[in-house]
Amino acid sequence: MFQSRLCTRTSRESPKDEVAMNAQLLERAGFVQKAMAGVYSYLPLGRKVLDAVENIVREEMVAVNGQEIFLPALHPKEHWLATGRWDGFDALFKITSRHDFEYALGPTHEEMLVPTMKKYIQSYKDLPFSVFQIQTKFRDEARAKSGLLRGREFRMKDMYSFHASSESLDEYYERVTYAYKNVFRRLGLTAYLTEASGGTFSKYSHEFQVPIETGEDTIFYCSGCDYAVNSEISEQGICTKCGGKGMETKASEVGNIFKLNTKYSDPFDLTFTDESGEKHRVIMGCYGIGTSRLVGTIVEAHHDSDGIKWPEAVAPYAVHLLALSGGEIRTKADALYSELRARGISVLFDEREDVSIGEKLKDSDLIGLPHRIIVSEKSLVNGGYEYKKRAESTSVVLPQQELLNLFGQHS
Amino acid sequence: MFQSRLCTRTSRESPKDEVAMNAQLLERAGFVQKAMAGVYSYLPLGRKVLDAVENIVREEMVAVNGQEIFLPALHPKEHWLATGRWDGFDALFKITSRHDFEYALGPTHEEMLVPTMKKYIQSYKDLPFSVFQIQTKFRDEARAKSGLLRGREFRMKDMYSFHASSESLDEYYERVTYAYKNVFRRLGLTAYLTEASGGTFSKYSHEFQVPIETGEDTIFYCSGCDYAVNSEISEQGICTKCGGKGMETKASEVGNIFKLNTKYSDPFDLTFTDESGEKHRVIMGCYGIGTSRLVGTIVEAHHDSDGIKWPEAVAPYAVHLLALSGGEIRTKADALYSELRARGISVLFDEREDVSIGEKLKDSDLIGLPHRIIVSEKSLVNGGYEYKKRAESTSVVLPQQELLNLFGQHS
Repeated sequence: MFQSRLCTRTSRESPKDEVAMNAQLLERAGFVQKAMAGVYSYLPLGRKVLDAVENIVREEMVAVNGQEIFLPALHPKEHWLATGRWDGFDALFKITSRHDFEYALGPTHEEMLVPTMKKYIQSYKDLPFSVFQIQTKFRDEARAKSGLLRGREFRMKDMYSFHASSESLDEYYERVTYAYKNVFRRLGLTAYLTEASGGTFSKYSHEFQVPIETGEDTIFYCSGCDYAVNSEISEQGICTKCGGKGMETKASEVGNIFKLNTKYSDPFDLTFTDESGEKHRVIMGCYGIGTSRLVGTIVEAHHDSDGIKWPEAVAPYAVHLLALSGGEIRTKADALYSELRARGISVLFDEREDVSIGEKLKDSDLIGLPHRIIVSEKSLVNGGYEYKKRAESTSVVLPQQELLNLFGQHS
Repeated sequence: MFQSRLCTRTSRESPKDEVAMNAQLLERAGFVQKAMAGVYSYLPLGRKVLDAVENIVREEMVAVNGQEIFLPALHPKEHWLATGRWDGFDALFKITSRHDFEYALGPTHEEMLVPTMKKYIQSYKDLPFSVFQIQTKFRDEARAKSGLLRGREFRMKDMYSFHASSESLDEYYERVTYAYKNVFRRLGLTAYLTEASGGTFSKYSHEFQVPIETGEDTIFYCSGCDYAVNSEISEQGICTKCGGKGMETKASEVGNIFKLNTKYSDPFDLTFTDESGEKHRVIMGCYGIGTSRLVGTIVEAHHDSDGIKWPEAVAPYAVHLLALSGGEIRTKADALYSELRARGISVLFDEREDVSIGEKLKDSDLIGLPHRIIVSEKSLVNGGYEYKKRAESTSVVLPQQELLNLFGQHS
């Protein structure tokens, strides 16, 4: 992609109405733009990151046999009345149609999914299975000041599993836990599996918490093992699992998993017939991952004072290629751009002619692609290119073939 | 995919509340489920079709340098007041937050996009460019009885182009027209480029209309050339372009393209500075494709009394593999399933053991995958498989290698 053609531009100044670092950097670099408190537009660079995050999540859900679906955002009022959440869910957006209908604007999808699946579940032979979707959710949040960490409109992957027994749910819950660990590892995040209160669902649930300074939650994690607990259920000076020292940190909840049991199959009378012909309520689990929150969390976890440092797996482009002026340098840069693309490497090519060297370097730090290659006068003299990883502070000069070999390993 | 694991099931009876053929077949086959009038859930098979349609649209928009973005569904009221459409757009869903905000729920995105891009457009050097998104739209439609052809919640690709001159818009408009023709051709549809009224935008616009019996529009198309005109602007006994005979048909509007000119850059004062430093309003074009309507239109255009006949490009799976009983037949079918998948061919494998041969064949006709392979006792005896295209009425028996070669050409 030619940077001159990108429909956004960077900004040196932080938006005045943003306090969260993730929003400041993402807006300055042109990844997103705030439409209102808690509502963001994803511009080309931001959409690529969101897509990359969602594709990793999708792959891991498919790996645990999740079947992808896509449910409406408009929900019938009757389903929310059935669970008592029409009045009981504070952040529910309600819509009145001019044709005298009332809708809920989906903040979560149990009320939509369970009546939908009822049509297809009859026998124990239809169980277990799980379905998931990646979708926009809407919540009328009181405060929305954390950039992409808490939105009124946000993106989420929600998966729901259906079982004939608690044992089947337990087994699947373990498999999803493992899949979630894969997701966060692939995204370059350290996520603690954290015991938390189950809210209205059950006594306990599990959250996946990523330690960041600006997180909305506080967790105690063990310095000796991988156990963590949300401060909402206990403080932990000494780990109850291994006796290790408990450490306190702010954290961002990027995923959660719940054993719903029959909480939603009860109000919708979702049943199956067992081998002896007896009817039982279906046992359910639910599994959320906030994909837009993940984008914000990745930025909170991977940045410095100059800008973002994207992990390879979610970077909008792998390489930032900078041509430091026109003429022969541009010709050489064009050739390198072609070589890299021919190898399937995604490149943002800063070929802008009216922008100074200093500005290009600042933009490159701000946008934060993993690899930077500079084509300068030095390249013409000694045939080498200045190469630097965004996450490292030093650069090296490499001849073209050595540089290409380097990327051969990444693509 | 093992059909026994698919979370949906087929139904022999049409839903009582569906009059549109596309909705009847898609619901019976388990692709979608109606949540309310004009609101549908996409189940695994349906989501795959929608995805395939949207990916084709995406590829063609990228081919005309469209930059993909993702805008919010919640829009600030002020933007809709600015264009006069807060009160002027009948089908606008309005939302009141408990925190005293009012939002529009996006039925289209001019009001959201133009203020967003204003931040990045300053000079003629920033033009032209185009951005697009594939997103859910919401319209409080009076009637929603045509299945996926008219929804209160529906999917759409909308693209917007920004130009410094009418000539630049005209040139891009032609390129998009060509891209649209590619989209519909790839989807297996005959779409007429149809002159229509410009609504509030301009005197004329162009629609892409697919002739189907259940279409909501009436067009007159020329039997001698490729010109068509919407009945809302004129009747056409004789083609005004070539003198050919005008033919009348019902049709579904699957795409439209408008020259917006300064309709939206005026209220938002979207300007650029030309080479002499003078300010001008930006010239815009907009280009829509209804992707969920396309799913319904494809079904209307490609079905028979037994079920759907999916075009290859959007079928949820390429092959329906039917094992007509267990034992040795199942073993042989398992092996063929593996062979096909190893060649990258997507297969729905009906390995259900408690379903009769007749039911399997009926389901296969209803679901409508392009290729059907039957493994039966005959396959054990003579080593051949019964092969039939859904769109054709006759089957042939082919030995395994010949069958695989056939699919080698398709994958």
